[in-house]
Amino acid sequence: MAAKPVKEQLYEVIFGTETPAGRRFDLYLIVAIILSILIAMLDSVEAISSTYHYQFFMLEWFFTLLFTLEYGARLYCSPKPGSYARSFFGIVDLLAILPSYLALIFSGSSFLVIIRLLRVLRIFRILKLMRYLRDANVLWRSMLSSRRKIFVFFCSVLVLATIFGSLMYVVEGVESGFTSIPQSIYWAIVTITTVGYGDITPHTVVGQMLASLVMVTGYSIIAVPTGIITAELADELRRERSNKYCANCNRSGHDSDAGHCKYCGAELNP
Amino acid sequence: MAAKPVKEQLYEVIFGTETPAGRRFDLYLIVAIILSILIAMLDSVEAISSTYHYQFFMLEWFFTLLFTLEYGARLYCSPKPGSYARSFFGIVDLLAILPSYLALIFSGSSFLVIIRLLRVLRIFRILKLMRYLRDANVLWRSMLSSRRKIFVFFCSVLVLATIFGSLMYVVEGVESGFTSIPQSIYWAIVTITTVGYGDITPHTVVGQMLASLVMVTGYSIIAVPTGIITAELADELRRERSNKYCANCNRSGHDSDAGHCKYCGAELNP
Amino acid sequence: MAAKPVKEQLYEVIFGTETPAGRRFDLYLIVAIILSILIAMLDSVEAISSTYHYQFFMLEWFFTLLFTLEYGARLYCSPKPGSYARSFFGIVDLLAILPSYLALIFSGSSFLVIIRLLRVLRIFRILKLMRYLRDANVLWRSMLSSRRKIFVFFCSVLVLATIFGSLMYVVEGVESGFTSIPQSIYWAIVTITTVGYGDITPHTVVGQMLASLVMVTGYSIIAVPTGIITAELADELRRERSNKYCANCNRSGHDSDAGHCKYCGAELNP
Amino acid sequence: MAAKPVKEQLYEVIFGTETPAGRRFDLYLIVAIILSILIAMLDSVEAISSTYHYQFFMLEWFFTLLFTLEYGARLYCSPKPGSYARSFFGIVDLLAILPSYLALIFSGSSFLVIIRLLRVLRIFRILKLMRYLRDANVLWRSMLSSRRKIFVFFCSVLVLATIFGSLMYVVEGVESGFTSIPQSIYWAIVTITTVGYGDITPHTVVGQMLASLVMVTGYSIIAVPTGIITAELADELRRERSNKYCANCNRSGHDSDAGHCKYCGAELNP
Repeated sequence: MAAKPVKEQLYEVIFGTETPAGRRFDLYLIVAIILSILIAMLDSVEAISSTYHYQFFMLEWFFTLLFTLEYGARLYCSPKPGSYARSFFGIVDLLAILPSYLALIFSGSSFLVIIRLLRVLRIFRILKLMRYLRDANVLWRSMLSSRRKIFVFFCSVLVLATIFGSLMYVVEGVESGFTSIPQSIYWAIVTITTVGYGDITPHTVVGQMLASLVMVTGYSIIAVPTGIITAELADELRRERSNKYCANCNRSGHDSDAGHCKYCGAELNP
Repeated sequence: MAAKPVKEQLYEVIFGTETPAGRRFDLYLIVAIILSILIAMLDSVEAISSTYHYQFFMLEWFFTLLFTLEYGARLYCSPKPGSYARSFFGIVDLLAILPSYLALIFSGSSFLVIIRLLRVLRIFRILKLMRYLRDANVLWRSMLSSRRKIFVFFCSVLVLATIFGSLMYVVEGVESGFTSIPQSIYWAIVTITTVGYGDITPHTVVGQMLASLVMVTGYSIIAVPTGIITAELADELRRERSNKYCANCNRSGHDSDAGHCKYCGAELNP
Repeated sequence: MAAKPVKEQLYEVIFGTETPAGRRFDLYLIVAIILSILIAMLDSVEAISSTYHYQFFMLEWFFTLLFTLEYGARLYCSPKPGSYARSFFGIVDLLAILPSYLALIFSGSSFLVIIRLLRVLRIFRILKLMRYLRDANVLWRSMLSSRRKIFVFFCSVLVLATIFGSLMYVVEGVESGFTSIPQSIYWAIVTITTVGYGDITPHTVVGQMLASLVMVTGYSIIAVPTGIITAELADELRRERSNKYCANCNRSGHDSDAGHCKYCGAELNP
Repeated sequence: MAAKPVKEQLYEVIFGTETPAGRRFDLYLIVAIILSILIAMLDSVEAISSTYHYQFFMLEWFFTLLFTLEYGARLYCSPKPGSYARSFFGIVDLLAILPSYLALIFSGSSFLVIIRLLRVLRIFRILKLMRYLRDANVLWRSMLSSRRKIFVFFCSVLVLATIFGSLMYVVEGVESGFTSIPQSIYWAIVTITTVGYGDITPHTVVGQMLASLVMVTGYSIIAVPTGIITAELADELRRERSNKYCANCNRSGHDSDAGHCKYCGAELNP
């Protein structure tokens, strides 16, 4: 009878956010995640890592053990450990500690590049931060409801980039840096999105005219995703403001002039 | 009496999308188009094409014959072959197979550049994919209804680019890369659309002040197409919502995810 | 009695757009303007102008005489020549022909640079095209009604560019290309407007962090002019659609639920 | 009894904007601030400062003494000098004069860099200009009410930049300029915000594909802040309209240029 309350208390601290202890645990965890990411970043700067290599190594293992402990505790106190382990954040939690252990096993000198890759993967710990962005819901829902229009938009951009890139490959040729069609498509995407690195630029008059057309096209169609998101967001905000809850099915998102729940048809109280 | 049903069956498979066979045909066709485009792309990468040149040549002819067969079948089973051949997709289908055959005829060594051009034109097969983007209708309609405003906007951008480009040609001169007025107009378009390659940049103080003015202008007027599209799109979405009618109280304006009428609570038919 | 009808007929052809002759005159004039601009552009391309210099010279004088004739005719047939000469398009019409004549007088070898400037000013003939963009009214009115908000926005961008530019001048210094505060402000405008030439880039870690802040700021505040224009444009479109005219004061732009004219208070007919 | 009215009169001139004298004082102050900033800017241009160094030095001290006098007068005539000194503009006013005095004390040759920093800080006088942007209220309020959504958006951009930057560090490596993770995150921010300097660009095929993904992502999510601001701004404008009431029929929702009530035709009071 003693084991169960401990497990439940641990569950409330680790998974819950209602109790002060649960909120404090989350806060400490965020700080630990950000610190471990900062160390991974600084470790990649050669001027710093050559001096503090030993300290970084120790801190990395400190955080790895800490997150291992946290992962174990989550598995232990979760009512359904299997479904947690297979959930999105369960996999992210595992991916955040695995690379450091794998770096131990594959530590031959010829595996150095792979180890670097594995170490960098720890940066995915940052994904655990996403859990705390509760206010992202309105943004997320309006993006979700416009996902099909945005998919169509992306396909159009890709088709345009392929056509314009191929034309530029023919018009400009290898001398101007358009060495192949994939390279030219890369240039077209750089131009349509108005990024414009300038590593590949047209030099012939026809190429510059075509490039101008690509730019103006990109400049105009940037309006399309904005229009989609704005229209959906305005709807979402309007509905959020009406703030009407259905007493029957407990769902919100009703228009301000709604008299009945749009999901179950029950009458709404003012 | 046997020929006609075959022709009709073929028509349903090739042109129709209602039967399972028709949908499967479209799917296979899309895969074939994308594969043939990928091969044309990889063929342009010298490091790859020098090794697999023979394989690419065979695959190119395989797809050309396949699309020739498809084009013939479309002409054969269409009730009005002439109007199909003159339709947008009829011309695209022809353009997608013609270059490969033309490359056979004009195969002298002095025609090499033209052959490359013809081969690349095969990339236009990608246009055949557009046929499948059924969800693009809302976007397309809202762009169509704002086409006159967008045309006026483009003219203004061109006039601005011409004036700013000419002024920069006078102010900066040949040393900074502004070698002619068309070149300077190209620079102005690169700047107004906020692409900013950096291949031509102002070096004098007056030129930099003028360039700053061009940038801020471009930064502001990017708002105009966005405003046009957003306003039209919001209208289009509103209209889409008003097309959902309640059979009980005959009122419209329901959300796309609504199951019950928000006014009387009656169930909505899909 | 004969002179007056001729003057009036000429007025209708040159200034009017109601008669077929008036529309044809406008069309011919637009073509002549665009041709004269194209010649000025091609004349600035050295590879072309070195060969066709004589032809360009003759064509330039042909168009100059043509536009001089047109300017004279406008002055002659206008009921109030003085007010036409002082109007915006009167001044533009004069500026479009003056440079060619001034180039005759100041033709010493030491004035060559000024002559080039004067010649390029002919490009302002393009401004005469603006007269024909009748559909620009909705766009123009919505920009006019948001002009104060856009002015406040521009001031904020300038203040931000000045502060960020000065900070970068201190942080980066002369070695990275930030040679003076005006130069650094130019960099800040290039970055805030997301143009990003790349002719001046930060090299220190602090400079790159500051630059990232500038970029994200610019990326966010691009939303402000868009929001202003979109909101005003949506209003303007809504009003245009209601299409209600006041029979008393003959003005449009009323809301769809308006019962009285908002300008004179007279009742509106449905 | 003589001291108090002087203090009050001074208060009305310096802090107030209702009297003509108060408005004139504000105007003169703005001109003085802009002039002092221009001198600080020109002083940083070596070609100019080497010739006019003495004049700039004298003018700098003239303005410093002027602003010191103004700061003293504000402290003297303010009813609560302490709360003014601790207010935002009190601190800005102090920061605008302090650097010049500090440059006197720390004038050893080894402190030259710091002195330059202190001198440049005078540029913050520009912040005093913000006080006069009264029309910024609508913009400011709509940004304030969307500050939480914009914060969530910024966090998402930072998380995306960190993940994409780390991936590019692994994929591209040191040879392409991705020398460390912080440097790669800087590149990711440059790309997501569509600035695109081009000082660091991907060279491998995988890197270019990943970069294309980053660009298209950045191109799409630029829509999110725009959507947020536009939706809030449309609300703000709607609310502004609804603040205009008809005294006769007590209904609101009139356009800003309306002179008569659109419902009953009665004249509207300003």
